[in-house]
Amino acid sequence: MNEDDQETDLFRQRGGILLSNLVIDGKPAEIMVGPDGRIAAVGDGIRRSHHGDAEFIIDCNGSIALPGFVNTHTHAAMTLLRGYADDMPLQEWLTSKIWPLEAHLTGEDVFWGTRLACLEMIRSGTTAFNDMYFFMEDAARAVAESGIRACLSYGFIDLQDPDRRERECRATENIVAAITGMRNNRIQTAVGPHAVYTVSAEGFRWIGEFAQEKGIRIHVHLSETEQEVRDCVVQHGVRPPAFIDSCGCLTPRTIAAHCCWLSRNECRLLATRGVTVSHNPVSNMKLAVGRALPYHWLHRDGVRVTLGTDGAASNNSLNLMETMKFAALLQKYAWKTQTLAPAHEVLDMATRNGAQALGIGSGTVTTGSPADIVLINPRTPCSTPLHNLPSNLVYSCPGAAVETVLCDGRVLMLERYIPGEEAVLEGAARAAAALLERTRTNGT
Amino acid sequence: MNEDDQETDLFRQRGGILLSNLVIDGKPAEIMVGPDGRIAAVGDGIRRSHHGDAEFIIDCNGSIALPGFVNTHTHAAMTLLRGYADDMPLQEWLTSKIWPLEAHLTGEDVFWGTRLACLEMIRSGTTAFNDMYFFMEDAARAVAESGIRACLSYGFIDLQDPDRRERECRATENIVAAITGMRNNRIQTAVGPHAVYTVSAEGFRWIGEFAQEKGIRIHVHLSETEQEVRDCVVQHGVRPPAFIDSCGCLTPRTIAAHCCWLSRNECRLLATRGVTVSHNPVSNMKLAVGRALPYHWLHRDGVRVTLGTDGAASNNSLNLMETMKFAALLQKYAWKTQTLAPAHEVLDMATRNGAQALGIGSGTVTTGSPADIVLINPRTPCSTPLHNLPSNLVYSCPGAAVETVLCDGRVLMLERYIPGEEAVLEGAARAAAALLERTRTNGT
Repeated sequence: MNEDDQETDLFRQRGGILLSNLVIDGKPAEIMVGPDGRIAAVGDGIRRSHHGDAEFIIDCNGSIALPGFVNTHTHAAMTLLRGYADDMPLQEWLTSKIWPLEAHLTGEDVFWGTRLACLEMIRSGTTAFNDMYFFMEDAARAVAESGIRACLSYGFIDLQDPDRRERECRATENIVAAITGMRNNRIQTAVGPHAVYTVSAEGFRWIGEFAQEKGIRIHVHLSETEQEVRDCVVQHGVRPPAFIDSCGCLTPRTIAAHCCWLSRNECRLLATRGVTVSHNPVSNMKLAVGRALPYHWLHRDGVRVTLGTDGAASNNSLNLMETMKFAALLQKYAWKTQTLAPAHEVLDMATRNGAQALGIGSGTVTTGSPADIVLINPRTPCSTPLHNLPSNLVYSCPGAAVETVLCDGRVLMLERYIPGEEAVLEGAARAAAALLERTRTNGT
Repeated sequence: MNEDDQETDLFRQRGGILLSNLVIDGKPAEIMVGPDGRIAAVGDGIRRSHHGDAEFIIDCNGSIALPGFVNTHTHAAMTLLRGYADDMPLQEWLTSKIWPLEAHLTGEDVFWGTRLACLEMIRSGTTAFNDMYFFMEDAARAVAESGIRACLSYGFIDLQDPDRRERECRATENIVAAITGMRNNRIQTAVGPHAVYTVSAEGFRWIGEFAQEKGIRIHVHLSETEQEVRDCVVQHGVRPPAFIDSCGCLTPRTIAAHCCWLSRNECRLLATRGVTVSHNPVSNMKLAVGRALPYHWLHRDGVRVTLGTDGAASNNSLNLMETMKFAALLQKYAWKTQTLAPAHEVLDMATRNGAQALGIGSGTVTTGSPADIVLINPRTPCSTPLHNLPSNLVYSCPGAAVETVLCDGRVLMLERYIPGEEAVLEGAARAAAALLERTRTNGT
């Protein structure tokens, strides 16, 4: 067997992989990945007892092992719109640029956009993401091929229209059934009520019940802008958290994205309900939402805070290592507190908090956890000197410091090589160009 | 001659290099780099007329050519302190962590810290920087070896003490003479009055005169924090810009870093005096200074705004591509304006504005300009799709999208390979560890 064949086989292999010559928590270590995609053993010297189980041994050359990053708020296929329109007033941006393009999206576009998103996320160490968009069967196909994990929800938007609501309920049922039917252990499904300004009380109530019945997560935008809060009070007499709470949508299975405009009491409400919050600092800054997530209150109340990138149109990258730096810095700047959101807490947001929110294990590199593992290059300027690992990871290292990525016990990237990357880039570029052309030809 | 020899020769070569198969402004192009380190020709098809001048031809494989990035505010050697202390209240951070370490710095430390800084900057496309620190002859030696450009100033701090002022004046004269004496066309020197809270009126007046006499730049921290402004009013009866203006230090040769707390009228004053401003969004956020540079006023008044990273202790990276994204987003967030600091303006800040501020040409890829050139990989997720290049560069691409870097007509990095990189990382890591050990042993 020649080297190329061996390499191909490695990328196909689930488990039976020994990662040797690693560093974990500053100490030498090895990791044995079991055939069930979980960490069978971790520690210094496990090689001796597990040597026989390893079909492949990877010499990691002193790399630092971390749990994979978890991105808890994306619209992955929007990578096709990356850079198409920026620096515009929000309403003009949406109505003259983003929505006309989205109106021409096809399932095939969503497949290629999601493939590109997965590629970008893998290259920066993300092993799982929580996505809300359209054509989610195509998104699921892209996720399945990419080897990453995802929680996929169809963006439910009824605009107070009962007929439209019926269609959205059926669409939600169908996509939940379809994705459940895939029986892919890396892909789960959720319900995705878009936001309080696009979904009716009846819609939210149906979602609350449906999600409870199916035991699946609820992925919602919440209190992103001041306008949203004001309009909700006018329309429903209460602010967004109270409104969706009254519809049964604040649950321990709920992931609420943005939450910039939460009041002190609303933080307590989210804590009481066990809601997970997804902080999206890059998007919030780009769209100038005017207030940052009140992390100090949420943290004090014990709310699980995680990190998201949002879609590529409002970020414009899907790099959670970059998002860690933005989160740590935006919190300090916005709340005028140099000690807020220290590096180790932000690293937890990006790893264990995210993994726990999506129910994919502990989000740590420990025996029995899913083998979602990221290896960081210790020989780069960003990791030199290495006085304090969380600081280097949050404040210094770019996504490119990630050398190797495993998800569910399979190697997805090895020393920055991902099989088939070129084809994904070409397919996505072609889809983006065709989408623009269709939009131009058909008008808005 | 074998391949390795050829490669070594390429890295030693100044000019006589033809960059083929490039893209500039969306069009195919080639660049001929002349033996004087300048761009001898640029365009499609120049290969035919310049073939004979090329000792090396580099096939750039469709890369996008840009002018090198210029970092207008650094304390480069502070890379040794990267991650040593973060997330602390400013005064405690300075007095218990940063200053005790700095008190044990040696010239050799500054050499290694600056080498590491240059390495990090080259890897993210920076070809010139404006540095203020100590042991600047050692910094100059590091810059000379790195192949990058720099403007180096000794940090002048007299703390209102006449004896200390005398010593600082002599130190400044000596370093200016020493660096001028190096006759390295890539290295210039400047005067570095630290700030209004560390330098007396007499000190600033001496600096204003000395800098004018020598025709060199003045590099100063200005109006970084509200405290600085308040204290200046108490001590001198005027705010910082008026104070240093009265000492002759607001000139067209002045680069003022931070400027977060400028008033409307102070922006006009800087415009009138022709001062260059260095925006340091990452540092300002990390240190929670409470206000962002008033870019909207400065831009309207025609002030040249450039970008800086600040030192690694308050950033903690020296990646100007990252700083571009922070600048574009902080401006939008802080001034609640989605249209402020659009991508093309931020790209200009990082390239032509910076180059012009340091007097190193036009900061464009045009015939006659210094061959300070950065090649961007067009086949990455961050550059896919490529609807609008400035947007991809500012919002999507990390520093790792930089493939190849030339400075002064020499190749410093080729397809992410930099000769001698490992030795620099090892030397810097060793120096950082020894510095910590000395500080621990000797106490503060």
